[in-house]
Amino acid sequence: MFKAIVSASTLRNALDSVSVLVDECKIRLNEDEFGVRAVDPANVGMVDLTLEAAAFESYEADGGVIGVNLNRLEDIAGMAGSGDLIHLELDEETRKLHIQVEGLSYTLALIDPDSIRQEPDIPQLDLPASVVIEGAQLNRGIKAADMVSDHIALRVDEAEEAFYIEAQGDTDDVDLKLEREDMIDITVGAADSLFSLDYLKDMNKAIPKDAEVTIDLGEEFPVKLHYEFAEGLGHVTYMLAPRIQSD
Amino acid sequence: MFKAIVSASTLRNALDSVSVLVDECKIRLNEDEFGVRAVDPANVGMVDLTLEAAAFESYEADGGVIGVNLNRLEDIAGMAGSGDLIHLELDEETRKLHIQVEGLSYTLALIDPDSIRQEPDIPQLDLPASVVIEGAQLNRGIKAADMVSDHIALRVDEAEEAFYIEAQGDTDDVDLKLEREDMIDITVGAADSLFSLDYLKDMNKAIPKDAEVTIDLGEEFPVKLHYEFAEGLGHVTYMLAPRIQSD
Amino acid sequence: MFKAIVSASTLRNALDSVSVLVDECKIRLNEDEFGVRAVDPANVGMVDLTLEAAAFESYEADGGVIGVNLNRLEDIAGMAGSGDLIHLELDEETRKLHIQVEGLSYTLALIDPDSIRQEPDIPQLDLPASVVIEGAQLNRGIKAADMVSDHIALRVDEAEEAFYIEAQGDTDDVDLKLEREDMIDITVGAADSLFSLDYLKDMNKAIPKDAEVTIDLGEEFPVKLHYEFAEGLGHVTYMLAPRIQSD
Repeated sequence: MFKAIVSASTLRNALDSVSVLVDECKIRLNEDEFGVRAVDPANVGMVDLTLEAAAFESYEADGGVIGVNLNRLEDIAGMAGSGDLIHLELDEETRKLHIQVEGLSYTLALIDPDSIRQEPDIPQLDLPASVVIEGAQLNRGIKAADMVSDHIALRVDEAEEAFYIEAQGDTDDVDLKLEREDMIDITVGAADSLFSLDYLKDMNKAIPKDAEVTIDLGEEFPVKLHYEFAEGLGHVTYMLAPRIQSD
Repeated sequence: MFKAIVSASTLRNALDSVSVLVDECKIRLNEDEFGVRAVDPANVGMVDLTLEAAAFESYEADGGVIGVNLNRLEDIAGMAGSGDLIHLELDEETRKLHIQVEGLSYTLALIDPDSIRQEPDIPQLDLPASVVIEGAQLNRGIKAADMVSDHIALRVDEAEEAFYIEAQGDTDDVDLKLEREDMIDITVGAADSLFSLDYLKDMNKAIPKDAEVTIDLGEEFPVKLHYEFAEGLGHVTYMLAPRIQSD
Repeated sequence: MFKAIVSASTLRNALDSVSVLVDECKIRLNEDEFGVRAVDPANVGMVDLTLEAAAFESYEADGGVIGVNLNRLEDIAGMAGSGDLIHLELDEETRKLHIQVEGLSYTLALIDPDSIRQEPDIPQLDLPASVVIEGAQLNRGIKAADMVSDHIALRVDEAEEAFYIEAQGDTDDVDLKLEREDMIDITVGAADSLFSLDYLKDMNKAIPKDAEVTIDLGEEFPVKLHYEFAEGLGHVTYMLAPRIQSD
């Protein structure tokens, strides 16, 4: 069983974090949290979302798994004002999710979870460097990189205690340098990796501009981006595989 | 003869109500009102617009009929600020309409009224049910229906004294239920009819979100939507033919 | 050498005035001003931009010429907030322009100035009439003309002391009449010329709506439009060749 009430803005933040990578996903309706783990079709980007029961106005679940079309669910959540409450209730027999918001009732046909790509294991990685910056700063670096290239390098300069977002185009280069005082926190370590800009742009779309984003990095290693929403009760971790540096 | 001065916002509201259904129309320039009746090319949706002489700053007319290209007239009205006054004057000899607003003069070639589709008779119907709701609520129901289907059912539940806007998609359903306290007024009666969503979406575009919309309904009967603008001096009635309910 | 600091809004205003006509241009980095003269590929519209050294926070230059891709430079300037300062520095050896704004560094590859169309000579013309109007009024006349035609006539009526912006379509006509009291200034003289609306629309895009635009006109002669920005330290002159009047 599953029956919950949640604010429209919290549900939208949760769904957006996943829908930037995949169209369909499995949602785990655990007793103490609502969770999604998904990987994009090319196995390059992964997301791990959890929304604690306390982030809901009310939450009852017993560990089931449902498959959903994220765009449909986002459209419905988009009908609500951001202060509105959304009521969710699973009908076990018909395998439909009943969604209600301010007089509006939507019956969403679920997808067989077995037809959806397997949930990935998010690997434990011992990444040597970590920076914590505002979503707005990450956004600025990504927009700048997008002017010249479709790749982006994330690098920590240990001596300078600085974090660089860099891109090299055919003729032009761009970089955003964040020094210790520009960041919320930095743990220096050997870190320099190249990533596909497309994936990072998609992830960036879901990251609130005022969120604190923790970026864990290594040398030609995947990057992990972590942020919270819903007053710390919603947690998103993205992992993105590196591209081989050509030079 | 025809010579009138009207506020840009009033003229725009009037034109919009017709242009959502047709591109060209006849305007009746009666002594006491400015009127349009039009039907879309498929004979599914009709509009009856009247704007009383008192809605104009000044109004002189003697019963002539002119044919106009609505998009042209809307473009000109769109050049004015909403507080601006638009001067209209018919040149009987050249069959052109002179339009002036704040130093701008536009000479609009008229269309031979005989080349425009005949004005429809809006049938008198004795519809048993009627609800009065805000334009914003109708808009919400139409947007919700549009997520799942291209048809929309409007239904009154007599026992519940409730008005339902419903849509059934291939897999998903949606309905908006308005109870007595959500509405401005309701007259219960047997009413359940299905309509093409496209037409209702077009009509909805012209209906101000803060207007009181009266919806008259029956069982597999046309629906009539009525609202007023220009402080009650502008009147719009839409009529939409029903679709056959397939189940 | 070239090294300068300028506010993002001033640089954007300067670049926009040129980019509406050409994609690439030569910039003259004179000791006392930053200047561009360019003509569109069809030799119909010309622009002469100068931005005085005093319009910059700091400015050092010794008379060099660089070739730039304007869209690239505009994209970078667009990354800055309007209050941000943009640092520009020419690397003579690599022929690259280093651009810095708030931690962001962009290295722009320059274009060989010899590969860019020759700078035009802006002819000295003795135009008999001149009007000074607000950018917003010019914009209004151009938008009105665009409803009916792809040509626009600019005309001064000497007896009325009025300025007319006129357009004749196949069936409809439009004109905006500005009388002495609607204008900032007028010098009457014989003036009536026809222009391609496309060019004037492009120029209009760059003209701030609150700028005072001086329009110098003659009989079937080019028009000159002049306005200032950056508190009078930036100067733009457009010149547009006339079309032959067909009637």
